[in-house]
Amino acid sequence: MNELQIIEYIAGQAGPTDAQLIKGIGDDCAVIRKDGTRVWLLTMDTLIESVHFNSSFHPPEKLGRKAVSVNVSDVGAMGGKPVFVLLSAGLPHGFDEAWFRAFTRGLTDACREYGCCLIGGDTVASPGGLSFTLTVIGEAEADQVVYRSGARPGDTVWVSGELGLAAAGLELLSAGLAPDNRAFDHFREKHLNPQARVTLGRQLAASGLVHAMMDLSDGLATDLAHLCKQSGVGALLHAKDFPGVATLAAAAELAGSDPLRWAISGGEDYELLFTADPGDRDHLIRIAEQCGQSISPVGTIGTGAGVTLIQKRIDGTSSEMAVAYQGFDHFRKQTVG
Amino acid sequence: MNELQIIEYIAGQAGPTDAQLIKGIGDDCAVIRKDGTRVWLLTMDTLIESVHFNSSFHPPEKLGRKAVSVNVSDVGAMGGKPVFVLLSAGLPHGFDEAWFRAFTRGLTDACREYGCCLIGGDTVASPGGLSFTLTVIGEAEADQVVYRSGARPGDTVWVSGELGLAAAGLELLSAGLAPDNRAFDHFREKHLNPQARVTLGRQLAASGLVHAMMDLSDGLATDLAHLCKQSGVGALLHAKDFPGVATLAAAAELAGSDPLRWAISGGEDYELLFTADPGDRDHLIRIAEQCGQSISPVGTIGTGAGVTLIQKRIDGTSSEMAVAYQGFDHFRKQTVG
Repeated sequence: MNELQIIEYIAGQAGPTDAQLIKGIGDDCAVIRKDGTRVWLLTMDTLIESVHFNSSFHPPEKLGRKAVSVNVSDVGAMGGKPVFVLLSAGLPHGFDEAWFRAFTRGLTDACREYGCCLIGGDTVASPGGLSFTLTVIGEAEADQVVYRSGARPGDTVWVSGELGLAAAGLELLSAGLAPDNRAFDHFREKHLNPQARVTLGRQLAASGLVHAMMDLSDGLATDLAHLCKQSGVGALLHAKDFPGVATLAAAAELAGSDPLRWAISGGEDYELLFTADPGDRDHLIRIAEQCGQSISPVGTIGTGAGVTLIQKRIDGTSSEMAVAYQGFDHFRKQTVG
Repeated sequence: MNELQIIEYIAGQAGPTDAQLIKGIGDDCAVIRKDGTRVWLLTMDTLIESVHFNSSFHPPEKLGRKAVSVNVSDVGAMGGKPVFVLLSAGLPHGFDEAWFRAFTRGLTDACREYGCCLIGGDTVASPGGLSFTLTVIGEAEADQVVYRSGARPGDTVWVSGELGLAAAGLELLSAGLAPDNRAFDHFREKHLNPQARVTLGRQLAASGLVHAMMDLSDGLATDLAHLCKQSGVGALLHAKDFPGVATLAAAAELAGSDPLRWAISGGEDYELLFTADPGDRDHLIRIAEQCGQSISPVGTIGTGAGVTLIQKRIDGTSSEMAVAYQGFDHFRKQTVG
């Protein structure tokens, strides 16, 4: 079973729902009714040592921040504001207490910066290394929540920021490449301490222009495949339009890697992926600018199924390649070690 | 740092709270405002292989049920009803898929039986063995929630059910003792598949008679010490009144263990611990009977601090012993292996 099959099996067993439940398994957050006009958004993400982080190069403050950001990112990607955080910390026997204190400070600092607060959780002994599970509870106006399922044929596919930077940073860090090259610090920081696009997500949702949205955690290929499946549509991606790929060239050459692979299947960018009517292009760009962010159109939603990547060959012709679910699957791909 | 110190450090860093937060770190659940009259209760508990369960003798269906019960128990112990569940599953590479399906069935069956539903979560690769973190969201009338902090000098200390059975069962299972002795099945089942006292907890809370309540997860000594600390009181426990200890004699002799130690520091009974005015004794017993449960008075709340255990010696004199925080600390004590 891969991650998708596991989730589908669990969802199939989940059984009857509650009248207060608006959306269960299958989106960035579960959505439950709060009051007449608002909803709670609930998400849960786990970071495990040697799978999601390597403590030999991941400073504890930044890991604490990242644990919050990767969860808050799910709330922002549905148009919500994070409010509460629960933490379950798995700590090995004889864990480094100074390390743990720094991790906790990073976590609580990030909570403050995102405007949410830590309200409970659990601490357990963990023989297999450090592990941290967070639940984040956010809130949103019910009529402003953006789901994965609203993409429509003809929509433009947008991403915020740049793609593949976190994957580049992870590869540089894992291989210990060019540690003193400041030009690569931005890539390393994107892996170590990504920022969730909460303000942008909320403004896009509030605009009413966005049809479907999610965060980019598993890579553009996998995440867009999820969005297309939930929406009952397909998508074409244009490799030439991927933002940030050109900036990855030197790092990719050093690492012997492919910038396009980082961009499409690297994962952990924690940027926003969304679709909207092509006519709303200028309006969307203005919203992003007001949030201090860039957004880029990278493809188009179609009536088919799955995601197709279009690349220009050197001879001027184009190649087409199916890329659905070829992104970051934690059960198949390399770990951070 | 032991578990208590870790929680106190985290709580000290947690920072500003939200106007919707009624109770943060320090009780069985965090409590947040839902609407004018009701609250949400949020709790999170992790089960880690070789710390909390041994998969060589823990059937997956029962482990799935237990993962729900230990969380739901926290909701019931504050007088709430469980509604929603989030699951983060950590699965080793090449995990046993049939095992995982059985675990998931047990988990979703237990959700149905407690009246809650699984609405989301996360699945991750876990190099260190199986691990499962659940967040359970319950609801309650705001004016019926019972906290740990309400115990008053003069209160009677009550427990539901019997004490030490889960610890006895774990010791029998871990050592492979008397596997065919059906008389011990009840103890083994109490470790493998404990039942959360949700109905009893809700009825006790609704009665308005209970001053403080929590569930017995870490053992009577530790849990009562927490309750006393939160309430600013002390407690006297009378060993002769501990329910169930007499039934443990044969198992304790076989295991070379002490029934009283199981009862006071064994942990994982998932019974209710609560305090109330001595004059409400008969009323409380009737409520428990209506729920099909027994309750027993085991001590008295006093004005001091900490928990003192009173035992009769064979010569008729009594011994007094401080027992606070000598229960089950996951960072100091033996694991289930």
